[in-house]
Amino acid sequence: MEFTVKQIAMLLGGEVNGDDSLLINQLAKIEEGKPGCISFLSNLKYEPHLYTTQASAVIVDRSFTPKKAVSAALIFVENAYSAFTRLLEEYHQRIAYKRSGVEQPSHLSEGCDVGEQVYRGAFSYVGRNCRIGNNVKIYPQAYIGDNVRIGDNTIVHSGVKILDNTIIGCYCTIHPNVVIGSEGFGFAPQPDGSYKPIPQLGNVILEDFVSIGANTTIDCATMGSTIIRQGVKLDNLIMIAHNVEIGKNTVIAAQTGISGSTKIGDNCVIGGQAGFAGHLSIANYTKVGAQSGVGKSVREEGTSLNGSPAFDLNDHFRSLAVFRKLPQLEKRIYHVEKHLNNQEQHLNHK
Amino acid sequence: MEFTVKQIAMLLGGEVNGDDSLLINQLAKIEEGKPGCISFLSNLKYEPHLYTTQASAVIVDRSFTPKKAVSAALIFVENAYSAFTRLLEEYHQRIAYKRSGVEQPSHLSEGCDVGEQVYRGAFSYVGRNCRIGNNVKIYPQAYIGDNVRIGDNTIVHSGVKILDNTIIGCYCTIHPNVVIGSEGFGFAPQPDGSYKPIPQLGNVILEDFVSIGANTTIDCATMGSTIIRQGVKLDNLIMIAHNVEIGKNTVIAAQTGISGSTKIGDNCVIGGQAGFAGHLSIANYTKVGAQSGVGKSVREEGTSLNGSPAFDLNDHFRSLAVFRKLPQLEKRIYHVEKHLNNQEQHLNHK
Amino acid sequence: MEFTVKQIAMLLGGEVNGDDSLLINQLAKIEEGKPGCISFLSNLKYEPHLYTTQASAVIVDRSFTPKKAVSAALIFVENAYSAFTRLLEEYHQRIAYKRSGVEQPSHLSEGCDVGEQVYRGAFSYVGRNCRIGNNVKIYPQAYIGDNVRIGDNTIVHSGVKILDNTIIGCYCTIHPNVVIGSEGFGFAPQPDGSYKPIPQLGNVILEDFVSIGANTTIDCATMGSTIIRQGVKLDNLIMIAHNVEIGKNTVIAAQTGISGSTKIGDNCVIGGQAGFAGHLSIANYTKVGAQSGVGKSVREEGTSLNGSPAFDLNDHFRSLAVFRKLPQLEKRIYHVEKHLNNQEQHLNHK
Repeated sequence: MEFTVKQIAMLLGGEVNGDDSLLINQLAKIEEGKPGCISFLSNLKYEPHLYTTQASAVIVDRSFTPKKAVSAALIFVENAYSAFTRLLEEYHQRIAYKRSGVEQPSHLSEGCDVGEQVYRGAFSYVGRNCRIGNNVKIYPQAYIGDNVRIGDNTIVHSGVKILDNTIIGCYCTIHPNVVIGSEGFGFAPQPDGSYKPIPQLGNVILEDFVSIGANTTIDCATMGSTIIRQGVKLDNLIMIAHNVEIGKNTVIAAQTGISGSTKIGDNCVIGGQAGFAGHLSIANYTKVGAQSGVGKSVREEGTSLNGSPAFDLNDHFRSLAVFRKLPQLEKRIYHVEKHLNNQEQHLNHK
Repeated sequence: MEFTVKQIAMLLGGEVNGDDSLLINQLAKIEEGKPGCISFLSNLKYEPHLYTTQASAVIVDRSFTPKKAVSAALIFVENAYSAFTRLLEEYHQRIAYKRSGVEQPSHLSEGCDVGEQVYRGAFSYVGRNCRIGNNVKIYPQAYIGDNVRIGDNTIVHSGVKILDNTIIGCYCTIHPNVVIGSEGFGFAPQPDGSYKPIPQLGNVILEDFVSIGANTTIDCATMGSTIIRQGVKLDNLIMIAHNVEIGKNTVIAAQTGISGSTKIGDNCVIGGQAGFAGHLSIANYTKVGAQSGVGKSVREEGTSLNGSPAFDLNDHFRSLAVFRKLPQLEKRIYHVEKHLNNQEQHLNHK
Repeated sequence: MEFTVKQIAMLLGGEVNGDDSLLINQLAKIEEGKPGCISFLSNLKYEPHLYTTQASAVIVDRSFTPKKAVSAALIFVENAYSAFTRLLEEYHQRIAYKRSGVEQPSHLSEGCDVGEQVYRGAFSYVGRNCRIGNNVKIYPQAYIGDNVRIGDNTIVHSGVKILDNTIIGCYCTIHPNVVIGSEGFGFAPQPDGSYKPIPQLGNVILEDFVSIGANTTIDCATMGSTIIRQGVKLDNLIMIAHNVEIGKNTVIAAQTGISGSTKIGDNCVIGGQAGFAGHLSIANYTKVGAQSGVGKSVREEGTSLNGSPAFDLNDHFRSLAVFRKLPQLEKRIYHVEKHLNNQEQHLNHK
């Protein structure tokens, strides 16, 4: 795949300053650009690289004026970052190998209703009475249990395990080795100290445009559904327990865990390795720092939390600042006490 | 599956107050009950729902007296929660599709001894010289290495990897994508700064009634065995390192990690995302809070720990309470110092 | 497999004190030794076991002199620990069943170049245009995408998923259910609050002698490569985000997470459940404690960090020591204030 700088500028609706006949065959970061590469400059922190890059072309904002000579051809556009992302998408579209058809051996059980243009990879397994939409891709070694529904254009990567009764929307991406719909962790303590499993009869629902990162696990509900709303993006190695609900467009970074029956609101942003206790209700637009431990519900929208246990982000930072000085603080108290003690003794001697 | 309220009451040994001819075909939480559903009331926090629920029947404790009119039929039993759990189990038994037989292609190596009524799903793999008990279910794409033993009635879900020489008891449930018996993380540092792997020759032993959550990993011992005792319940994404031992009926929540050679006692309860250093010994009935970091052995049974590093739960809560007030504390010290300073200057001026 | 004490001593270049005709058929820890076992004593903490062990032989340092009678035969060598490790390796070599050949059904796509002596297990999948080196072992149910390169003598365990364009060196071990090359977690926020995925076009590179623990995930770069340098050892359930680079011989314990674009130096040692923010640069020989949260770059080699947020290890320990005494500290301040208050009132009364 090779284009001229001119062709790319036309695609992006930009103007070229420099040699528009140069050939471009790769995308690269500005600091890693080589001849044949196109790059972009958006964050001005990276401006010094513009004057040294070996990239053949660099996309810049229309509002930007270079301060020195630039060897690369410049393409001026409204928003360099968006334009570059668009280029990434174009490139991705063109290079992506579209898997299709059915590789053998693969297993399709009775009673299934499979749409058009579906890819079913070798060693994939589809259980009984499933409904698989159009354009769905089921990669090799994926497992789909009984009574599962998967909407159009969803991708189920290699090694994903989707258990019975799960419902998945359209345009979802389930990355490798994810487990969806495994039994929730519910046990009734017995008089002899042992535990008896409580049957987990519910399911998991993923709405449209959901993305689930590699090796993440989402347990089915005890009764009812564990629900991941439209547009939610979960990173890798996350744990979503039974009966949890994650609101629309909420984004959660890797290795976070949400305990049973907690409801996270819409448009929340949650850092990595955070933890949530069970049965909480977290308001929309809540932000939670990495490694935080949230033990209480959040009622006010737009709250920012940090720490374990988590409280207001700014208050937490203030407490942390003093935490670092605790040894000096203790010394200051010691000196005050000593001073008062000396006073006392002085008075007693009078 | 449909029963009358009367039939369910008989099954549970309860008495009906209301229309015992109503048909029941589903179980639901009291706040989500619809006609045709049966629900239960145990925690009185949920009592208001009793007077508004649309469920056809609600199971309640014999000791309970409703304060208002209830439209649902009530079934009075000794313990509403247990009775409902029993119903869940009954229901589960009836709806669960029992997989059986051998799906092809599946791989069974030489020298194996496979019991009666075993399910071996498509694309499952059993290595050499394995002993598989009666009624064992090996789901599609599960892998069992060489010389593995699995007791009667154990379920090995899809994508589980059980490595060589592992021994698994009866009535265990291994959820999808669990890895058991992978090499322990042991490396000998070399003079040039590199590391040489130390062969891990031991195995993993799971006793009876053990449950292992999705994507959890249990490493084999360097020598001897990593041991998970009877009745242990591990949640998802947990890490059990080489030579660890987990005592009988201990329950561990998701994403917790136990470092090498640590022994956890019987009947412990460990929260999510907790961590244990290596070579510790933790007494029976120890409770550890979520996100705690346990760095020392616990000798006394029934200890409750919290924090990272973890210490006594109540002491930790007291320290945390002051942590939140640290900025004010610092100000109070500042004021005291200022006061003393003024005194001093005042005296010097005299 | 059975040897005499004499044969083992010759192999290790050691001298025997005791019966060198005893037969040895197993390796064991000194506290678990039984007749027929050989063990070792290196850490003198374990010396008391030497006088009670039932092992037939014990390897000890040449510099060691027993204080009491020992029933086991002693083999004196330069370094007992190294000698025993060598024995473990010998034993491992001899008992390890070498898998080889191709089990059917397995999938090999067009355009692949596969070396000599390769094992491809049943239900394994190799995508298009891959280059697989000599002696590579691809276990059952492993998945290898398109355009992947794997060097000689590398082991890909069961259930591993290696996605398109990944490059893996020689002598690597990838443990079960690891995911390498999955899409990085990159999304562009849209005006309506939703997120649009940013195509992740880069790949993952693993150099030689890398070990990746079970269920760990390594995401591909947005552009360029996520790089794991020579000799790196990663434990289980670790998250390596897009564009991360891990320096030579760095060792990372289980459940740690490294956010996008962070560069970890050579020879670092990182504890379990630690977290790193994105875009950091961590100097060589940095040590990071378990459960730490590293939010800033580290410029000085050999730095030791602890805590969340992490700072200097010793300073952190000092702050923690005071943290535990915070309730008393608060009381001391209260007493000081009260004292000054009394003074004040006393003065006002005069």
